[in-house]
Amino acid sequence: MVQIPNTPAPTPSSAPRSVPTSADVARLAGVSRATVSYVLNNTSAVRISEPTRRRVHQAAKELGYVPHAAARTLRAGHSRMVLMPAPPVPAGPLYSQFVHDFQGALSRLDYIVVQYGASGLHGDDAARAWAELRPVAVLVPGPGLGPEGVAVLKRSGARAVVTLSSEPVEGAHALLLDHAGVGRSAAGHLVARGRRRIGVVVPVEPGLKMFSVPRLAGARQAVQGTDATITELPLAYTEESAAALAARWPGLGLDAVFAYNDEYAMLLMRALQDEGVRIPEDAAVIGADDLMLGRLLRPRLSTVRIALPSGRDLAGLVDRAVRNPGAQPESHEMFEATVVHRDST
Amino acid sequence: MVQIPNTPAPTPSSAPRSVPTSADVARLAGVSRATVSYVLNNTSAVRISEPTRRRVHQAAKELGYVPHAAARTLRAGHSRMVLMPAPPVPAGPLYSQFVHDFQGALSRLDYIVVQYGASGLHGDDAARAWAELRPVAVLVPGPGLGPEGVAVLKRSGARAVVTLSSEPVEGAHALLLDHAGVGRSAAGHLVARGRRRIGVVVPVEPGLKMFSVPRLAGARQAVQGTDATITELPLAYTEESAAALAARWPGLGLDAVFAYNDEYAMLLMRALQDEGVRIPEDAAVIGADDLMLGRLLRPRLSTVRIALPSGRDLAGLVDRAVRNPGAQPESHEMFEATVVHRDST
Repeated sequence: MVQIPNTPAPTPSSAPRSVPTSADVARLAGVSRATVSYVLNNTSAVRISEPTRRRVHQAAKELGYVPHAAARTLRAGHSRMVLMPAPPVPAGPLYSQFVHDFQGALSRLDYIVVQYGASGLHGDDAARAWAELRPVAVLVPGPGLGPEGVAVLKRSGARAVVTLSSEPVEGAHALLLDHAGVGRSAAGHLVARGRRRIGVVVPVEPGLKMFSVPRLAGARQAVQGTDATITELPLAYTEESAAALAARWPGLGLDAVFAYNDEYAMLLMRALQDEGVRIPEDAAVIGADDLMLGRLLRPRLSTVRIALPSGRDLAGLVDRAVRNPGAQPESHEMFEATVVHRDST
Repeated sequence: MVQIPNTPAPTPSSAPRSVPTSADVARLAGVSRATVSYVLNNTSAVRISEPTRRRVHQAAKELGYVPHAAARTLRAGHSRMVLMPAPPVPAGPLYSQFVHDFQGALSRLDYIVVQYGASGLHGDDAARAWAELRPVAVLVPGPGLGPEGVAVLKRSGARAVVTLSSEPVEGAHALLLDHAGVGRSAAGHLVARGRRRIGVVVPVEPGLKMFSVPRLAGARQAVQGTDATITELPLAYTEESAAALAARWPGLGLDAVFAYNDEYAMLLMRALQDEGVRIPEDAAVIGADDLMLGRLLRPRLSTVRIALPSGRDLAGLVDRAVRNPGAQPESHEMFEATVVHRDST
């Protein structure tokens, strides 16, 4: 069996020089390895004199010794690492801000947050790859993880697995994102404004289905029992795609559109205006996310505001789950959708 | 010495059940631990029969065994982990796309990319925290890392340290981001269009200084030897701040503005238009980043296009550096700034 390795082994001559160990620190400081470990890990169980602590720190600094998180994890059986798989699409402004706040809040609770990049794996196979880093908690955005993946993570030492998705997963804490509610609010608002022939933008970009499908379904729910109809409108995030949709707009016979989010709404609104479609007279337009740009458009864009959990609340939840790994998994509704009525509807 | 630990130790009753080890897999499969390791690490050096391989995989699956990246790192002396500190501010659309592509490209080269969240540490102290994860390569966006931090990372086994910043750091490969060039291009364009009293927006948001300061400096360079002047304009990313700036616009006597980037340009352009300032007649406005939104504004926004390295090129560079850790550090100019002239200037 011959396999071609992905990378040739580096030649010995180019290997980095040897990494200083805690034994080197102990030797230089004239103390035991255990003392080095106590001092550098800030262990409170053992009383160590100030001069000794200073000697150890001095020796570590001189040698450039850095404790090995991996070795520490092996000893302690768990890490302070919270692992967050990166989302399958480049993060939008709302999600970037959320991750930024969440990382800051967890860091103040003395955790390290690492975002794990695309591994090319999916579902439970991806979970196996994450488990190799032995995180103490895993926060999974989006669907795909199943009960088997949750079990793999827990068996590998994760004290808390939390999913951010529309449906709960057995064994994991669930932060339920009600994307259907976003579509329901948007379409409900348009119906209440007297619109009856409602288009719903569905981005063709891969990776957005997990948001767009439930939003469309929610819009359909909102018109049930009314005489309003829903028309699905595929749209790419390009000026060409928007211009093509605007050109066939008159033939569609629509009087309103829920444009998926504020960015697609800006794109489509501009294309419609360039075609002479008056907003909101001929077509009411509503977005979602309540980004700054919607307030800067003319007419000002109506939108659905999505209140994500604060990074601090979510960090607190993860911390509680880590401290109490035996607790029953909890489910929380994670955001509320509220219509912000401006001038475009 | 009594120290209060950050987290109470979990009670023994809530500890997760024991993690399966490779010894358990070996026992169940009826093979040696070495064989388990050879099979699961896909070692090509040893010939192992297909039935044995199947038995090992079956046993690992049954027990839910996942190899421990930390243990493997300890054995191999290095990992496949490329560590990327998260930027100090929420990522903008350009950077999100870049990180997304870079992660995908490195994953195809069989690396794992992890973005390391804010640790509350800076400069070389942050480097020490990163070193604890024993990454094989580190890509540091922004300034702060010094030669000492580079040395700590290398001593801890990093084969390549790459900085993405305006200035090279001793011992590290440098991808030089020419933000001054962005400001130079923008102001140079305005001067060439006949403008003489040029405002330059400097965002007040913390964390943007590393971009805004060199952009302002570049704008100043562009007017050297001309009769044009540069006026610094602090601006927050809020409608209120933009409205306040627009209200005092007439008194400033400016005929053009480089608005830091397209998002600030959109904000300021709207406020100026609301004040009755005609664009470009009364004030030429140029942004930077060449985002979609600039093309959707009216007048269409002139901008500075910033060509970031492709994720694939950068992944290739990191991979070469990892394979050849003894090589001299390289410097590469990482982006080119080109003016995209539209209707706002």
